[in-house]
Amino acid sequence: MSTALPEVLDLLGRQSHAIDGGDGPGWAATFTADGVFRSPTYPEPVRGRAALTRFAAAFAPANPRTRHVVTGTCVDPGGADALVARSTLLVVRTESDGAVRILRVATLRDRLVRVDGRWLIAERAVSVD
Amino acid sequence: MSTALPEVLDLLGRQSHAIDGGDGPGWAATFTADGVFRSPTYPEPVRGRAALTRFAAAFAPANPRTRHVVTGTCVDPGGADALVARSTLLVVRTESDGAVRILRVATLRDRLVRVDGRWLIAERAVSVD
Amino acid sequence: MSTALPEVLDLLGRQSHAIDGGDGPGWAATFTADGVFRSPTYPEPVRGRAALTRFAAAFAPANPRTRHVVTGTCVDPGGADALVARSTLLVVRTESDGAVRILRVATLRDRLVRVDGRWLIAERAVSVD
Repeated sequence: MSTALPEVLDLLGRQSHAIDGGDGPGWAATFTADGVFRSPTYPEPVRGRAALTRFAAAFAPANPRTRHVVTGTCVDPGGADALVARSTLLVVRTESDGAVRILRVATLRDRLVRVDGRWLIAERAVSVD
Repeated sequence: MSTALPEVLDLLGRQSHAIDGGDGPGWAATFTADGVFRSPTYPEPVRGRAALTRFAAAFAPANPRTRHVVTGTCVDPGGADALVARSTLLVVRTESDGAVRILRVATLRDRLVRVDGRWLIAERAVSVD
Repeated sequence: MSTALPEVLDLLGRQSHAIDGGDGPGWAATFTADGVFRSPTYPEPVRGRAALTRFAAAFAPANPRTRHVVTGTCVDPGGADALVARSTLLVVRTESDGAVRILRVATLRDRLVRVDGRWLIAERAVSVD
């Protein structure tokens, strides 16, 4: 499955730049149209492009100078034309005094499916350390 | 050699998830059967699958909420059907009060060989900053 | 463009090990002969291999036990035979007492061009959070 890894890494990189830069549609576009995001940091799962867009667009205004740092991605088969990617996420913030702090560490478990020849996230489950 | 990079990145990602998740056999399986792990953090090199498995299985219980964050991997030829990968490792821990701390920074120098069509680590040398 | 990603990741990894290890020529070799480096951390852009070499060679002596941690790389077309790579950089230092601190977080925006079959950085623009 490592042949899919470059495309998955590109998708995850693009996704981090999108949410950290306030680009809600860009972040939501890394999910399928009915994609789901589940995280214990938030009370409810986020479902579908419109909700995902609003969710991501709200992040940067509420979290200035904050970055998603995603590493350690590996991919496994996830059924027919699907794969599961596991990654480690550090959320890193530059505080107003210039000090940099890691806010939290989490594991991302993404189920990806192929849509029109591109891998997209059908479901993300975040577990925080 | 960058054509081997996706497979090496996948191996290193898988390895981090294994040791951080308490999966000793999964970690040891990223090494060759007679693989060697050398690190100044530990008194002796660890040699062979059985010892590597015990070593990795002991990490998570002794280091809860601790992650191996591996970045900056590049690969160079390392002789016939072998390559050398260099990476930067951050060991990151979430403390009991929720604060996140980088415990140490290290360089990984891995010699990989091809076994049954897959790259595996024959020898890892860790140097701590 | 994700087909170029492994080569770009290898280049960026190699570059981090070079500057952190005091290898000025190795760092400069990741740029084109007339490559340009722009960063608000430094007063002037650095232009061309000779200046890039001196710039990089000066980093490690002035910044012991300091690492460039580059993540989140994604690539987009950047014109004919060119691409733009965006990455997130953490500069991480191990202090004399062993504590590890993230000095700063930045975005790297690299324009890469193909020279003799290899991707090299024609221009890097660093923006610090």
